[in-house]
Amino acid sequence: MLVNGKLQDTIAIMDRGFQYGDGLFETIEVRANQPIFLEQHLQRLNNDSQRLLLPKLNLDLLRSEISELCQNAGNAVLKIIVTRGEGGRGYRQPENIEPTRVLSLHPFPDYPKNYYTDGIVARVCNARLGLNPTLSGMKHLNRLEQIMARAEWNDAAIQEGIMLDFNERVIEGTMTNLFYAKNGELFTASLNLCGIAGILRGWIFEQMRVNEQDFFLDDLREADEIFVCNSVIGIWAVRELEKCRYTVGKITRQLQLALEVAKYHV
Amino acid sequence: MLVNGKLQDTIAIMDRGFQYGDGLFETIEVRANQPIFLEQHLQRLNNDSQRLLLPKLNLDLLRSEISELCQNAGNAVLKIIVTRGEGGRGYRQPENIEPTRVLSLHPFPDYPKNYYTDGIVARVCNARLGLNPTLSGMKHLNRLEQIMARAEWNDAAIQEGIMLDFNERVIEGTMTNLFYAKNGELFTASLNLCGIAGILRGWIFEQMRVNEQDFFLDDLREADEIFVCNSVIGIWAVRELEKCRYTVGKITRQLQLALEVAKYHV
Repeated sequence: MLVNGKLQDTIAIMDRGFQYGDGLFETIEVRANQPIFLEQHLQRLNNDSQRLLLPKLNLDLLRSEISELCQNAGNAVLKIIVTRGEGGRGYRQPENIEPTRVLSLHPFPDYPKNYYTDGIVARVCNARLGLNPTLSGMKHLNRLEQIMARAEWNDAAIQEGIMLDFNERVIEGTMTNLFYAKNGELFTASLNLCGIAGILRGWIFEQMRVNEQDFFLDDLREADEIFVCNSVIGIWAVRELEKCRYTVGKITRQLQLALEVAKYHV
Repeated sequence: MLVNGKLQDTIAIMDRGFQYGDGLFETIEVRANQPIFLEQHLQRLNNDSQRLLLPKLNLDLLRSEISELCQNAGNAVLKIIVTRGEGGRGYRQPENIEPTRVLSLHPFPDYPKNYYTDGIVARVCNARLGLNPTLSGMKHLNRLEQIMARAEWNDAAIQEGIMLDFNERVIEGTMTNLFYAKNGELFTASLNLCGIAGILRGWIFEQMRVNEQDFFLDDLREADEIFVCNSVIGIWAVRELEKCRYTVGKITRQLQLALEVAKYHV
């Protein structure tokens, strides 16, 4: 792990990332030493850090540290955390903000192949996402909503939990964005009030027309295909959600294939 | 600073408090080596840790570490942080949770005396509190809403920002709970959808009848008295909020006096 360029595995207790979750993170697939969609991740980190009023990030420095860290990483997960750094007690940000950047490598999870070929089983979470336009879309360090939702089940046969918002709109999975297809059209939730705007979600918007709109559990029940995605798992079809079963459909397969091609050309 | 009983000022990067804000905190006034309302703080910490599905806290151990830390503290602020401890990447909690507890002492802030005698100036924040019954009321480590609200002003003449929720209900200050009096009755927001249930707020409920109900900025404009409170500042009257001015009223004065008496007898 690299903290501000130095090898260490601890952080100051007074770091605002620890005190308040005052920061952002990115989770990136590393394949054969190459971080996949690195520029998209850095761009999101840069945009969100502006929304959080952090000082301008030194992206070149990040690129160079990432390149060093990943040179022998093989297949791994790279996590970047950027916080508002150390600063006295209290919510007010310090006058001189010196952000903390933490880079860490983790083993790539060993997902069963049938998650990709046959799809996964998902459930609907009881915990609801709060509505907050100031923070929505960002991959910030305030993640208790996801933790409480993920704590609802222990059944290893269930791979993801679908989260609704306070108004019962379907938004995303605990760790993924969610799409569904109906009559050849693709749909996903708008994230103006809650949710995380994932990098793969953005990539899918570049591949085909997506209807970004409100929808509810009833719409999912009548969907032809459902899939979830994130930067580490890629795209998983949902083959079962509560009492409904789905086949892995044509749109999901096309996007899975296009994603493999895109990663291969990174 | 004490981390799990050991003197250190760092925390593991993989601590879920740093990774996700997965934990709770308490901020306690220490006066002449005595933590004020300590049992109430420990009780809230204990209740909220159960809501967060943390293992049962060892309150006796906490009491003994706090007593050791505070024996020469004089007047100070004691902060307790409890997190879900270390646990691999991902929102899912580890199977064996070993919480991290961090105790730290900080200088007691040197607030001008006239904040108590004459009251403070407050503003209304633009950032709104999200609605989330799963997390509302808890003093958890996900505090970006408060940080973004506190970042809205730099004017040293303004001491607090009042926060509304997504439905424009008045809830609290960025670091305080808020009460107002009208025709001899006291009012404060219900915290079933957002907000932090402060220890002083609870203490005030024990002193007199409080109407816990929804209210809006219009109600504040017509209030006879407004005050904000927390465990460190105590009770500050609001003498000015946006364009309205208020006098420091009888109910505020009575509560300030009763609070001093209560602290004296701790």
